[in-house]
Amino acid sequence: MNKQVIVSLLLCLPIAYSNAATPVAEKILANGLKVLVKEDHRSPVVVSQVWYKVGSSYEPGGITGISHMLEHMMFKGTDKHPAGEFSRIIAENGGDENAFTGQDYTAYFQTMEASRLPVSFELEADRMRHLHLLADELKKELQVVTEERRMRTDDNPQAKMGEHFNAMAYSNSPYKHPVIGWPADIANYQVEDLQAWYQRWYAPNNATVVVVGDVDSKAVFALAEQYFGGLKPSEIKPLKPQTEIEQLGVRKMTVKVPAKLPSLVMGYKVPTLTTAEHDWEAYALEVLAGVLDGGSSARLSKELVRGKQLAVSAGAGYSLITRLSNLFELEATPAEGKSVYELESALKAQITRLQLELVSTEELQRIKAQVLAGAVYERDSGFYQAMQLGMLETVGLGWQKADEYVSKINQVTAEQVRQVARTYLREDHLSVAYLEPQPIDGQTQNNNKKEEK
Amino acid sequence: MNKQVIVSLLLCLPIAYSNAATPVAEKILANGLKVLVKEDHRSPVVVSQVWYKVGSSYEPGGITGISHMLEHMMFKGTDKHPAGEFSRIIAENGGDENAFTGQDYTAYFQTMEASRLPVSFELEADRMRHLHLLADELKKELQVVTEERRMRTDDNPQAKMGEHFNAMAYSNSPYKHPVIGWPADIANYQVEDLQAWYQRWYAPNNATVVVVGDVDSKAVFALAEQYFGGLKPSEIKPLKPQTEIEQLGVRKMTVKVPAKLPSLVMGYKVPTLTTAEHDWEAYALEVLAGVLDGGSSARLSKELVRGKQLAVSAGAGYSLITRLSNLFELEATPAEGKSVYELESALKAQITRLQLELVSTEELQRIKAQVLAGAVYERDSGFYQAMQLGMLETVGLGWQKADEYVSKINQVTAEQVRQVARTYLREDHLSVAYLEPQPIDGQTQNNNKKEEK
Repeated sequence: MNKQVIVSLLLCLPIAYSNAATPVAEKILANGLKVLVKEDHRSPVVVSQVWYKVGSSYEPGGITGISHMLEHMMFKGTDKHPAGEFSRIIAENGGDENAFTGQDYTAYFQTMEASRLPVSFELEADRMRHLHLLADELKKELQVVTEERRMRTDDNPQAKMGEHFNAMAYSNSPYKHPVIGWPADIANYQVEDLQAWYQRWYAPNNATVVVVGDVDSKAVFALAEQYFGGLKPSEIKPLKPQTEIEQLGVRKMTVKVPAKLPSLVMGYKVPTLTTAEHDWEAYALEVLAGVLDGGSSARLSKELVRGKQLAVSAGAGYSLITRLSNLFELEATPAEGKSVYELESALKAQITRLQLELVSTEELQRIKAQVLAGAVYERDSGFYQAMQLGMLETVGLGWQKADEYVSKINQVTAEQVRQVARTYLREDHLSVAYLEPQPIDGQTQNNNKKEEK
Repeated sequence: MNKQVIVSLLLCLPIAYSNAATPVAEKILANGLKVLVKEDHRSPVVVSQVWYKVGSSYEPGGITGISHMLEHMMFKGTDKHPAGEFSRIIAENGGDENAFTGQDYTAYFQTMEASRLPVSFELEADRMRHLHLLADELKKELQVVTEERRMRTDDNPQAKMGEHFNAMAYSNSPYKHPVIGWPADIANYQVEDLQAWYQRWYAPNNATVVVVGDVDSKAVFALAEQYFGGLKPSEIKPLKPQTEIEQLGVRKMTVKVPAKLPSLVMGYKVPTLTTAEHDWEAYALEVLAGVLDGGSSARLSKELVRGKQLAVSAGAGYSLITRLSNLFELEATPAEGKSVYELESALKAQITRLQLELVSTEELQRIKAQVLAGAVYERDSGFYQAMQLGMLETVGLGWQKADEYVSKINQVTAEQVRQVARTYLREDHLSVAYLEPQPIDGQTQNNNKKEEK
């Protein structure tokens, strides 16, 4: 099975702007299920996604990673469809399917020939409320998840550093723990934990169904009513805010792991579209990320990699679509003979420059064009269109935000970019982790060169 | 009301050795309540304590501090005894009462003339299962707790630094969050949260009653049966282990708060009596703490405060009686003109010395005598005797450990002290926080000189 945890991959995903010719149609069923449909008749294909408002940031200590574990268990069968049948039926219908868990959501999707949408709906509605959670299946799937953690985190120096880094940078935000969960928590999942998690969060009034493709929206609403309409809603208690305390000074850590190359990650506490006092701040941070890391002509590549040849690679990342405030991150690997500390100074000099100098009109225009080009490119994919709608909806912003992206990015001024650099990229709100490479033994694969962005 | 949160105060509490002439009598009632009695007929007084196995380390994110909040609410009345009556009755009977919450326990106690023990039992049994939790009372008491947090943490530079420090030093251990709770969590307690916490943890099979004083143990058991025997047990699910991940390198943070003096705190990850592979390691760490900070002739005072005059104060602390692994901490305030970094180097030089040189026979004997003298002194107090039994029982070690303390401390060798210094006081397992004083405004009280130890 090809399920995956998408974590860092999603961090830099811009919002595609909606096509005015094919607006999003929305219907909320009586049981609270929200259905979003975007018709796209360019090919006879449909993408169907079910988004649950639950992810690792919903998890209490002791059972971290349980949303991801439950995602795996969602393929283990129901009364109607025993274990394995879900994937078999989708495959028999020529479909492609997958699932992913993030900090703020758990999502399931199928891509199929458009007429097969009922197959997807029937299966998803079935497992929304009637999942079998059996000790034997959990035991088996725990091995899969344990192995997944080993491969993706424990044997991946960058990911390992990232995990320790997040745990330091956040004091009380639930973003401090990894999506896949801490090892001791994974080792101690019980069927009852999964059952409780499933019953608490998997309900029509905690889900959004997003359909993009060669469909008629009214027909999709009717289908949704037919398959999902009979499911009972749950009482969903509001989450506690867990607002991160204010950071009162810089934090630094060394992380010693087997690896070939040193590297560093820096993160400043920043607001997102969900938490910013003014929307423009989040869009200005998005543009600022583009100034530093928007292709090969952006500043980090141009000045630190090619110019001063301080770095083998250097990048910046910011996500404006998350439920809680997060980090504006810089990551870099020093060139041979250069230290992580030299590189850190150079990265900070770039931040200082953004705080002092206005980005020129030409550079700003180029960056905006690049940021928007990325969005346009993604609009070409039904999957990404659905994903953006689902994500906006699930973090509480509402899918309508997709419509504003282009104009909001275009409205960002050089002054605003400088303003957010001054307000948010402050030393007192900075955390830094240095990866200090340790000898790699024969068994350990060297994959520290793989950038996560 | 004089309730308090005892946190750091408990960290350095040694175990008193039991008096062979007055052994502890134990009885477990049919409903699971454990009753411990230690007769002490020197004065006609009785100390009665009820210990619940619940504290801040049991709390999930979002409701941190709820054990402490519930401790406050435990004085808000039952069917039989309306709000305020508890304290009034105790006072009318000439008693003294209090309660405290820690990482691993919540405890309630009364000290009374020995014949009044039934008064205490009646009230404690009543509120163990029949507490009223009302929204109005919560609202009022929330103001008290909010003010308590402001005074004890937010306006106390050392405490504030300690809170940030713990959140950095621990990655996933529940010791990461403060006993009093994070501000956003305190601000969002609901009556249902407290109700659920009370129902989950307040039950005879999750409690230990400890009685020390001028009583007859058989009579106490009969009384306990009479008052507590009718209470129904609960199903108490075992806690998830939440084993802290291995730290892979040093961590450092600056904490900028209004204060007069800079200071620093250093913490090494160490095992406790509960988690050490061999008991002797925990006792050796206890002795090691005494070498550094066992009165004015101990090394930190002698060498850093009086000798080199680097520090105004310097201390070391370790607690061997906690449920989970914790930190061996060093705290110091530099002398005028000295920096926290100089002081850090000097503290590390002390650690290095312990790793290289054996403590001399004379010094070791003197330290052991001091450590044990502290224990003997505390044995004089019925309150502390009860406290030690309750704490040992509540963290899962069993009260019997109290008997071993003297012989185990006496058995610690200089080689063992060097061994634990080498094994556990490692740079890679170290976290450091530097308090960088900011200007104090007129409203802010200067209490940063107050040592927490």
